[in-house]
Amino acid sequence: MSKRDFLAMEEWSPEAIDHLLALAVRCKRGEIEGGLVKKVLAMVFMDPSLRTRASMETAMFLHGGHALNLEPGKGSWALETELDTVMDGATVEHIIEMARVLGRYADALAVRSFPKGTDWAVEREDRTIRNFARYCDKPVINLESSRRHPCQGLADALTIREHLGETARKRFVLMWAWHPKALPTAVPASAAIAAAHLGMEITIARPAGYDLDPDDYRAIESLAKGRGGSLQVTDDLAGAIAGAHVVYPKSWGSLLHFGTPDAERSLREGKRDWRLTQPRMGTTAGGRGIAMHCLPVRRNVEIDGEVLDGPNSAVIDEAENRLHVQRALMLELIGDRNGY
Amino acid sequence: MSKRDFLAMEEWSPEAIDHLLALAVRCKRGEIEGGLVKKVLAMVFMDPSLRTRASMETAMFLHGGHALNLEPGKGSWALETELDTVMDGATVEHIIEMARVLGRYADALAVRSFPKGTDWAVEREDRTIRNFARYCDKPVINLESSRRHPCQGLADALTIREHLGETARKRFVLMWAWHPKALPTAVPASAAIAAAHLGMEITIARPAGYDLDPDDYRAIESLAKGRGGSLQVTDDLAGAIAGAHVVYPKSWGSLLHFGTPDAERSLREGKRDWRLTQPRMGTTAGGRGIAMHCLPVRRNVEIDGEVLDGPNSAVIDEAENRLHVQRALMLELIGDRNGY
Amino acid sequence: MSKRDFLAMEEWSPEAIDHLLALAVRCKRGEIEGGLVKKVLAMVFMDPSLRTRASMETAMFLHGGHALNLEPGKGSWALETELDTVMDGATVEHIIEMARVLGRYADALAVRSFPKGTDWAVEREDRTIRNFARYCDKPVINLESSRRHPCQGLADALTIREHLGETARKRFVLMWAWHPKALPTAVPASAAIAAAHLGMEITIARPAGYDLDPDDYRAIESLAKGRGGSLQVTDDLAGAIAGAHVVYPKSWGSLLHFGTPDAERSLREGKRDWRLTQPRMGTTAGGRGIAMHCLPVRRNVEIDGEVLDGPNSAVIDEAENRLHVQRALMLELIGDRNGY
Repeated sequence: MSKRDFLAMEEWSPEAIDHLLALAVRCKRGEIEGGLVKKVLAMVFMDPSLRTRASMETAMFLHGGHALNLEPGKGSWALETELDTVMDGATVEHIIEMARVLGRYADALAVRSFPKGTDWAVEREDRTIRNFARYCDKPVINLESSRRHPCQGLADALTIREHLGETARKRFVLMWAWHPKALPTAVPASAAIAAAHLGMEITIARPAGYDLDPDDYRAIESLAKGRGGSLQVTDDLAGAIAGAHVVYPKSWGSLLHFGTPDAERSLREGKRDWRLTQPRMGTTAGGRGIAMHCLPVRRNVEIDGEVLDGPNSAVIDEAENRLHVQRALMLELIGDRNGY
Repeated sequence: MSKRDFLAMEEWSPEAIDHLLALAVRCKRGEIEGGLVKKVLAMVFMDPSLRTRASMETAMFLHGGHALNLEPGKGSWALETELDTVMDGATVEHIIEMARVLGRYADALAVRSFPKGTDWAVEREDRTIRNFARYCDKPVINLESSRRHPCQGLADALTIREHLGETARKRFVLMWAWHPKALPTAVPASAAIAAAHLGMEITIARPAGYDLDPDDYRAIESLAKGRGGSLQVTDDLAGAIAGAHVVYPKSWGSLLHFGTPDAERSLREGKRDWRLTQPRMGTTAGGRGIAMHCLPVRRNVEIDGEVLDGPNSAVIDEAENRLHVQRALMLELIGDRNGY
Repeated sequence: MSKRDFLAMEEWSPEAIDHLLALAVRCKRGEIEGGLVKKVLAMVFMDPSLRTRASMETAMFLHGGHALNLEPGKGSWALETELDTVMDGATVEHIIEMARVLGRYADALAVRSFPKGTDWAVEREDRTIRNFARYCDKPVINLESSRRHPCQGLADALTIREHLGETARKRFVLMWAWHPKALPTAVPASAAIAAAHLGMEITIARPAGYDLDPDDYRAIESLAKGRGGSLQVTDDLAGAIAGAHVVYPKSWGSLLHFGTPDAERSLREGKRDWRLTQPRMGTTAGGRGIAMHCLPVRRNVEIDGEVLDGPNSAVIDEAENRLHVQRALMLELIGDRNGY
């Protein structure tokens, strides 16, 4: 039997995702003991993390396992991710050896690696996470790569189900938000894929120039249609939010100007009003639509403090659900199947 | 029932502190097994740590629990601690979300956050630790804030009791020491509060301009009097040490010049003789007074190596006791009350 | 009974090393459960690590224990390693206090500390690891010091035995390799000592000016002869590799120019052909000699990718064996002797 990786939600069958989400619910209810005794997860963080690290480490611990927290270039050796290279420069450790060695110590490998912001044609291939998966004999889990953040997507899906109950034909709005920096598209793409999995009517509201990668649109639309939902893209923010059940504000940089930050900054300028405010939340379905965000969030920049602290906010539940979906994921990938 | 934080020793009743110290003694004797199984402590270090981190992580492990070690601005996102702010600058994560989210993953939250050294009028409010406590649903533990280091205080109290037996009416000297930097006042204030809890006769020996905050003096004196002790402040170092049972040298910066390091440095100049030497230890009660320090200590600057390595030194016992008081504290705050 | 440190393989008797290696084989086969329950290992990393940290943390966890990961100067205080000093400079914590305090929290202390590259006459005394051992009451384990990397040596010995079976009179070649930086000699010395322990015929192939420390040559030769093997040193790389059973390429800087990097770089120049290639591997015994390396390795600089990815490579097994020899080492040093 070949090993199973978790690199993108849409690469697993909808049935497998639903099974995971059901297992996450049982974890959250405290119904599952053990399952990861003596199991080790090696986590490789090439970029910062709070929730991901804390929730994964806690997930492993709660079921009897242990998570290693490795940071190449800080406590660990600077990592080379290009396959064919003569390593006479600054990098010290090659991804091939790292993937192979960690596969000998650990039962699974989890990797966070953000895009470097230079060339989208390269970054869109998501080579780092895919090369870890290629060279490691054990399951590889994506903790946010250039293209996807599927653990976040799982938590998003669980949170929406908890708050909305039935999700079919309900309206999910992914809303571009202004931010002082050009951020990656992994989270917005993954959030929309989560909504697509739930069969929701998805609207992506973004200013001109801020489309996700065409492949992302295809993946979202194809999954949504297969599950009874739909996708539309608009620059009419007010129209999108009106009557929405979920509003998911998130900033990302323009892929048109991926390697040229000055041009991107010019395009972003003057768009600070793309921000989730309480008046806007008031126009959601019954005024009771939920506001979501992966966190960390820039208060009063992406979302007003009033929304974050108010009754519409689901962001803390969403963060908590990272823990439970990851417990389910680890049990599914490397669990010993006793006790659950 | 509302949650219980441990932010400052004097905020707990003397009975509750005595109960903790008694539990710490039982932990040290090896009488208590388990009690923290499946419990998670999230530790947030905004500043460096050796003993605190190692002892807390060990404390959780020895009783079946686990400690997360998070470092905002290094492995984690840069933290915003101001409540009302538009986050369009360098900080990425807000304290409100961090406190709330970690309260979902962990059973308790422990925070180290030193003062920034700019404005004592602000720092003396100890906002960072208090805001973590305000926004986190779980118990919050102070691992050294701008004003207090109560885990150190607990260890100090236990160490003094172990070495002196009866403490009432014995003499405790908090001695200002020279140091190349202007350090915070949290440790000296907490050490004196610990001695006050023990009903000791406290002398604070410091050069002019090096008083602790007036609130600290009030807290120390009020607690000391309530427990049968007293407080006096002097610049007569030799007189203070003569006949003392405990000498606790510690450096701190002048609060008169808190935001003005050049002025503070001028005031500190020429005071290198404020250093604990073996001849000075010879003048303590029976020549057998104990020397204490929270560590890390600058050898031959705050305390001579001869004292640190000699028979009067209690500094290693004091560091060890961090472990045992924190075992007791965690059992008290989040323990499952089985087995002890 | 005095405590037992593991600072250099040749300081333990050959019988004790053979006992360790036999225990490592049993660990690898999964024959040993527990043994380190409630045991704590404090790991101090003054330099980066991937394998060492991941394998040690995993080793402790698999047997019920826990490893603390401390990094002086990063999360922990900057460390002073000179014994007699007035600490009024940049360092904050003294090695004496650190060693003593960690000995109170943990059951053993493990330390990584590379040479600083200024003065070999000082570095060759290996003071940092030896001072930790001197001042800590608990067993101290060398995770790579200026002179030795004995955990790597143990893994090297186990790997050679696994691949070669009988090792007596088989040929081991330690081959100097070019590298963009002048690296320490701890690994090559320790690898040759491991081969000496196995009674192999050792050839060290290096260009003029790249001898190991004379003490290392003496230690290798003395141990090799005692175990039925031998040592020769040559600059004839092709002659050395021809018929070899093991080729261990490794770069190190010239000790002749230890504190003078420009001179060292000049001497290293033009030696990029000192690289392990597949054609060279073809000349080994039966074309089936094994290639070893401690990792991290510079691909296509020290060893060609073709060799690393090919059937002669033992580097991943060698890295895996770090885990198993360290499990055995920790069981031997602090294990509770139940269950094995």
